[in-house]
Amino acid sequence: MKGLLITLEGPDGCGKSTQIAFLKEYFEKQGYSVVETRDPGGTAISEQIRSVILDTGNSAMQDMAELLLYAAARAQLVGEVIKPAIDAGKVVICDRFVDSSAVYQGIARDLGIDTVYNVNLYALQGIMPDITIFLDMPAAEGIKRKKEQHELDRMELESVEFHEKVAEGYRRLAREYEERIFRVDAMLSVEEIREIIRKKVGSMINLSDKL
Amino acid sequence: MKGLLITLEGPDGCGKSTQIAFLKEYFEKQGYSVVETRDPGGTAISEQIRSVILDTGNSAMQDMAELLLYAAARAQLVGEVIKPAIDAGKVVICDRFVDSSAVYQGIARDLGIDTVYNVNLYALQGIMPDITIFLDMPAAEGIKRKKEQHELDRMELESVEFHEKVAEGYRRLAREYEERIFRVDAMLSVEEIREIIRKKVGSMINLSDKL
Repeated sequence: MKGLLITLEGPDGCGKSTQIAFLKEYFEKQGYSVVETRDPGGTAISEQIRSVILDTGNSAMQDMAELLLYAAARAQLVGEVIKPAIDAGKVVICDRFVDSSAVYQGIARDLGIDTVYNVNLYALQGIMPDITIFLDMPAAEGIKRKKEQHELDRMELESVEFHEKVAEGYRRLAREYEERIFRVDAMLSVEEIREIIRKKVGSMINLSDKL
Repeated sequence: MKGLLITLEGPDGCGKSTQIAFLKEYFEKQGYSVVETRDPGGTAISEQIRSVILDTGNSAMQDMAELLLYAAARAQLVGEVIKPAIDAGKVVICDRFVDSSAVYQGIARDLGIDTVYNVNLYALQGIMPDITIFLDMPAAEGIKRKKEQHELDRMELESVEFHEKVAEGYRRLAREYEERIFRVDAMLSVEEIREIIRKKVGSMINLSDKL
């Protein structure tokens, strides 16, 4: 039996971490073995790459170098963590994944979605999320919430226009891949969002013969 | 007037650094503005990526992550250093470049040369070396020399078989791209090698209307 890959996406500050914790608890209570991870990151090497990407001192980073760094971190994460976990029948819950690159580098940095998916083909080893939960929130609201949590990193420090493109990019992607990307209004309360996601994921598990 | 990109390639320990210093002096004496750099590296961001790649602690690195990290470092180097220098009419001398990925990741790691060039298409911005000097040396000899210089890095620590594949890979590449890749017997003396390279580069400059 193969496992399941669930990814959470959305503009910075949309509340992914909170919902990931709920999802993990939900699956574990039902006896599933859960791997929680994040992209970029999730392995020693990918975390080193993450540090290079997000370092506020690296403002001279070329857009294409950024795209390739995300793909490198992802290749390591897929090969070392995600693929082995899925092959072992586990549920993998990942904070961001390839759709982040499609939106941040493809749309907001304007490298093109095709370029992003072409490069990421090499990183993914054929693995795509079974479901992607998109927490839709106005960009300005997300950044406001982030600022209350910690110092902003290099990506979070981008302009308001950049973050607007990100938010709009996610909406576009959610329309294009509506069979995979599940949009949730992230302005609802934490509990409301949790229930919507549980319902969606629950119906998916029941329908699925993957687990 | 456009500049010139000269790359030096070969197995570890083949003597690139020594010849690069000679080449730099040769061009500068003739009044050229020379930029000496290395790949991976040559910019603050690319040097950070280089550290991740070569860290002996990163032995768990996936081959595809390695390929993408080299491409990321190269994208940054091309965008920040090589392209601006060539556009300004300078001579760029680079210690390793895309052929290293073709040989190390494409052949020795067996990811395939096509995969390497496909990924690197995104990093190169259409820039390829005008001439590549390949210092051909038996792999074992190169590694012996490296060991006398410093602690070996993650790539240098690879098996003898790996380094043999690298050396053989360079020979194959030099045959396939004989109009661009100039093979020099690196077992000759330092001075002999210097003269062979000067002669080759000198005739190229005289024939070229690029400078």
